[in-house]
Amino acid sequence: MGLSYENGIESEPLFDPNILKALDFSKSKVIFDPPISVIDPGENLKVRPLCSGDYDRGYLKLLSFLTKVGDISRKQFLDRFHAMSSCKGMHYITVIEDTVSGQIIGSATLAVEQKFIHDAGFRGRLEDVVVSDEYRGRQLGKLLVETIRLLAEHVGCYKITLDCRDRMVKFYKQLGFQLEEGNSNFMTVRFQD
Amino acid sequence: MGLSYENGIESEPLFDPNILKALDFSKSKVIFDPPISVIDPGENLKVRPLCSGDYDRGYLKLLSFLTKVGDISRKQFLDRFHAMSSCKGMHYITVIEDTVSGQIIGSATLAVEQKFIHDAGFRGRLEDVVVSDEYRGRQLGKLLVETIRLLAEHVGCYKITLDCRDRMVKFYKQLGFQLEEGNSNFMTVRFQD
Ligand SMILES: CC(C)(COP(=O)(O)OP(=O)(O)OC[C@H]1O[C@@H](n2cnc3c(N)ncnc32)[C@H](O)[C@@H]1OP(=O)(O)O)[C@@H](O)C(=O)NCCC(=O)NCCS
Ligand SMILES: CC(C)(COP(=O)(O)OP(=O)(O)OC[C@H]1O[C@@H](n2cnc3c(N)ncnc32)[C@H](O)[C@@H]1OP(=O)(O)O)[C@@H](O)C(=O)NCCC(=O)NCCS
Repeated sequence: MGLSYENGIESEPLFDPNILKALDFSKSKVIFDPPISVIDPGENLKVRPLCSGDYDRGYLKLLSFLTKVGDISRKQFLDRFHAMSSCKGMHYITVIEDTVSGQIIGSATLAVEQKFIHDAGFRGRLEDVVVSDEYRGRQLGKLLVETIRLLAEHVGCYKITLDCRDRMVKFYKQLGFQLEEGNSNFMTVRFQD
Repeated sequence: MGLSYENGIESEPLFDPNILKALDFSKSKVIFDPPISVIDPGENLKVRPLCSGDYDRGYLKLLSFLTKVGDISRKQFLDRFHAMSSCKGMHYITVIEDTVSGQIIGSATLAVEQKFIHDAGFRGRLEDVVVSDEYRGRQLGKLLVETIRLLAEHVGCYKITLDCRDRMVKFYKQLGFQLEEGNSNFMTVRFQD
């Protein structure tokens, strides 16, 4: 871990990059055609943890495809980054970098909740899946979701869940997520837009 | 905060108890009849943060009304408790104690996720709502849910969400949670039972 510098940009990973390399894609039931994986996501692409330097690599612009992001200063970004990394094992934000442009073009998060139920277990959640529009249709969304699913299993979660809009149900079904009979309600109270 | 001792049981709160006392029930749209609140939940009852001593006050037995808990040793409990409390502002487990029996008879959790979206916002989740069977029908479930909702707003979450079974939807609807049109799907992958 620790700090490193790439093109002068401080670059500390949010979590240990070796965890991603350890994921066993041979266990995956998802079919990638052509075959891609975390180790080999395609030419000039790299799957890795979010890094502190990604403020300068278009990470927040990418998130704005998902929802409102707002005007986050570098200091705010780094403060939040370090708050996340100091809570070990809770936030696994995984990104795809285009190594030619140096831009972040995809991201998905495993958020872990610590429980007392299920033998003081961990519950995983898939959050904030997004691929930059010029890169869609290249299986990168599938790759990110499958990476987070394997990661959740690898770090010992007893389940991983997600909430989504109707139009996304089909996408997640083909990746193994189920609307469980009688147990698939997601409810919200909003305090802000 | 810090340690205190009650009947010889070490009793460190999971979070600052003053946060609960600061919640403004006059803002609540939920009707309690007779009126109860965090400050005054009813005779011989006390609403407070989970404490490290609650291992000896039936907390895990209470959780077993919800789902599988397993055989958690005191050490495991305390290790998890301290892991939670060291991640400041993430786990707000709120319990109701019967001060006569000294047992925990209700519990609900606000789990907070740190985000970059929504101005580096916080997303809240209502988790693990449970009231011991002899205490049901006394508005304590409602009180716990409303406490967590107010707490989520108080600590600055932009929304609070939950997932639940069909039979619980009515209960949460009357407490202000909504199945949002086109956005109420909850999906799961299980790694263990
Ligand atoms: C959803 C998203 C991440 C998919 O990324 P992608 O890289 O284009 O997806 P893939 O190339 O891996 O697509 C995999 C499959 O899912 C399908 N798919 C993609 N998006 C879909 C959608 N919105 N609805 C249904 N199916 C979809 C593709 O057609 C493809 O199907 P196939 O395997 O049968 O050919 C991307 O469209 C995106 O970022 N959208 C905006 C953000 C968003 O809505 N995120 C989801 C939040 S819950
Ligand atoms: C759900 C639970 C917490 C409710 O606790 P409680 O203290 O009995 O609830 P309250 O007394 O505050 O009940 C409030 C209202 O909700 C209703 N209600 C309670 N449980 C309900 C249920 N399962 N379905 C529908 N309505 C319910 C009550 O009838 C009451 O209605 P009213 O205000 O119109 O009279 C309790 O039944 C429990 O612990 N159940 C087992 C665990 C569980 O299922 N938790 C929910 C996980 S999502």
